[in-house]
Amino acid sequence: MISLAELQVRIERGELSPDTAVAHSLEAIRAHEGTVGAFVCRDDHARAQTTGPLRGIAVGIKDIIDTADFPTEMGSQIYRGHRPRGDAPVVMALKRAGATIVGKTTTTAFAANDPTATLNPHNGAHTPGGSSSGSAAAVGAGMIPLALGTQTGGSVIRPASFCGVAAIKPSYRLLPTVGVKCFSWTLDTVGLFGAGVRDVALGLAAMTGRPDLAVPMNVAPPRIGVVTQAFAGTPEAAGAEALQKAARAAGQAGAAVRELALPEIVAEAWRIHPVVQDFEAQQSFAWEYEQNYDAMPPLLRSRLDESKDGTPRDYDAALDVAARARAALATVFDDVDVLLTLSAPGAAPAGLSSTGDPRYNRLWTLMGVPCVNVPTLVVEGGLPVGVTIVAPFGADAKALAAASFVEGALGK
Amino acid sequence: MISLAELQVRIERGELSPDTAVAHSLEAIRAHEGTVGAFVCRDDHARAQTTGPLRGIAVGIKDIIDTADFPTEMGSQIYRGHRPRGDAPVVMALKRAGATIVGKTTTTAFAANDPTATLNPHNGAHTPGGSSSGSAAAVGAGMIPLALGTQTGGSVIRPASFCGVAAIKPSYRLLPTVGVKCFSWTLDTVGLFGAGVRDVALGLAAMTGRPDLAVPMNVAPPRIGVVTQAFAGTPEAAGAEALQKAARAAGQAGAAVRELALPEIVAEAWRIHPVVQDFEAQQSFAWEYEQNYDAMPPLLRSRLDESKDGTPRDYDAALDVAARARAALATVFDDVDVLLTLSAPGAAPAGLSSTGDPRYNRLWTLMGVPCVNVPTLVVEGGLPVGVTIVAPFGADAKALAAASFVEGALGK
Repeated sequence: MISLAELQVRIERGELSPDTAVAHSLEAIRAHEGTVGAFVCRDDHARAQTTGPLRGIAVGIKDIIDTADFPTEMGSQIYRGHRPRGDAPVVMALKRAGATIVGKTTTTAFAANDPTATLNPHNGAHTPGGSSSGSAAAVGAGMIPLALGTQTGGSVIRPASFCGVAAIKPSYRLLPTVGVKCFSWTLDTVGLFGAGVRDVALGLAAMTGRPDLAVPMNVAPPRIGVVTQAFAGTPEAAGAEALQKAARAAGQAGAAVRELALPEIVAEAWRIHPVVQDFEAQQSFAWEYEQNYDAMPPLLRSRLDESKDGTPRDYDAALDVAARARAALATVFDDVDVLLTLSAPGAAPAGLSSTGDPRYNRLWTLMGVPCVNVPTLVVEGGLPVGVTIVAPFGADAKALAAASFVEGALGK
Repeated sequence: MISLAELQVRIERGELSPDTAVAHSLEAIRAHEGTVGAFVCRDDHARAQTTGPLRGIAVGIKDIIDTADFPTEMGSQIYRGHRPRGDAPVVMALKRAGATIVGKTTTTAFAANDPTATLNPHNGAHTPGGSSSGSAAAVGAGMIPLALGTQTGGSVIRPASFCGVAAIKPSYRLLPTVGVKCFSWTLDTVGLFGAGVRDVALGLAAMTGRPDLAVPMNVAPPRIGVVTQAFAGTPEAAGAEALQKAARAAGQAGAAVRELALPEIVAEAWRIHPVVQDFEAQQSFAWEYEQNYDAMPPLLRSRLDESKDGTPRDYDAALDVAARARAALATVFDDVDVLLTLSAPGAAPAGLSSTGDPRYNRLWTLMGVPCVNVPTLVVEGGLPVGVTIVAPFGADAKALAAASFVEGALGK
């Protein structure tokens, strides 16, 4: 993979020109894109900017995010040839920081469950996960050092786990979702993929103008609470093993690690996540559903068919549960700095018919708290499995630092 | 003006066909549009739907809200000829409820301060207010029974006051802002204009599928706290008179009315509203500002020039103030049902160079609480002045009922 942090150092030292750095990415795309299929469209002649912390950094943008220089087709024929007038604020944030947008990455249609043709870069017989399939696969295949995705259930952290890359789903609205096709306004969150935790931290710091998000040279051992999310069911052997391995490595590196139970209201929030998501999706996709029913992606259409009768009363009750759960979750962090939990039930499923199960991700999306995927182990078939570090709302720097600590511990 | 409630009754009774009701609106538009200039574009051959609670209701949509059947030009040459692929969810909500979209109404460019050419329907030498200029003027001129606007500072309540119409800025996110050009995601709120309070209540009830928003036949006298928002400065004589008149009328009709002071943290929230708005606007308008600087509307461009150095630290601190103020404001409602306050400093200013001052509105937008404008008096020159009823977050039904009570008391 291409490390953003390493590129930055070499460019700052004058060992590498920004244009050469971007050219390397374009070369890597040419080498791997034929087998992975991570891009919807590309600028094969992209040039670097000369200033900004992200000069020389080639970035891929999930194709539900508006770009003025590329079509934005949402993974659906309904938006074929659609070209937004302007760039989404997150795209402008990258450009303002000096990055070069080299293309749009594949997305499941409307960031729902209908799969893309993208293959897992570590094993072409498996899904890369979704909905941010192309962004995770492009970074995992070593094509680009940075990519943007979005998460409503588990669409950043899960594909990151499956593709063996670091990723952050930041605190809700640390990055604006303006100009991003909406699924659920209470849930949708823009996230970043990179080779390692320090890489995504530098990307996020540059995009937001928040230098304190960069991981410091030395990270003090965090107090870690391990949560198994039993309410979400039992993981596969590989998922359980990854959680144990990360907890053990962190403990051996000096972290205080203990198992934690989450308050019942938090489990209840996990249960009602679909109520919030589906009620809002009925509105978000109203035009597509009413005017383009036949052209709708079949899995999303079925989901909308089935959730048509959601009531404002159920939705209001679900939002109330979410608010109480956020308050209860905040108190869990009185005793620990971060939580450590599963990124997915196991490794990427075989085949492309499913993008995998977001059941260990969706709670954190509803809570709005920052989550970082840390690649943890590789199982048979070369398939990676990650774990998730969760920090309190707004403590993205803490999430990144602790994730970097665990990443370092795993590397020892 | 055209009352939505009356149309509904006549249509339900079979006294009026939906098509005739829409035809009446189209006729009224032809009669008044030449002098008012409330529309950017229209469908002069619009037909009614045959089902739904809003069948026969002709609606105007502020031109920063996406429509597939009309261009959406944001009041700016930067979006000239721009045609969104789909309808915004609020537009679909109207269509699903049976309404007929008859056109797009004028908006100040990007819903900021650069005025439109729209005239106040009660006195052509005065502004109709902004930024939802056309929507307020079209309802005030009796052209249409319902229109959509948006508010980031005071862009629904203020023009409603200036144009002598009822309006609601609902609780934050009761209506989704998906497909609405973003100014500030923490503040932007979609609102409704109608002839009277019962009219906007019926419109909102139909759009949201929440029948309890309709005002009941008999409303119990509410406990009203009068707040002058001294932190926002002194109103003009007309504004002060409207507040006194509404308070007196409500008291005479049986309401318990008393003056209330707001907690200091709430005043502080009023002060930091611009910090939130401007920091987010820097991101929301990044593409327009960087790529179309010369074509930017001058007042908005100056605002962006001046607020370029806003820092994440100041923004985070402002959001923290807002959160604490929301909690403090909630306790104010322990003793009263609703608040009564100013909708504007006075009547609509003369000329079209300014759309008026949102200083009495912006606090409530940041608090996310429902606000209803109630037309209260008419001053020299035929210019209306309104007052605002404010209810707790989520208590939109209570805001509408109390506003209807005050409206009734004023009519006695």
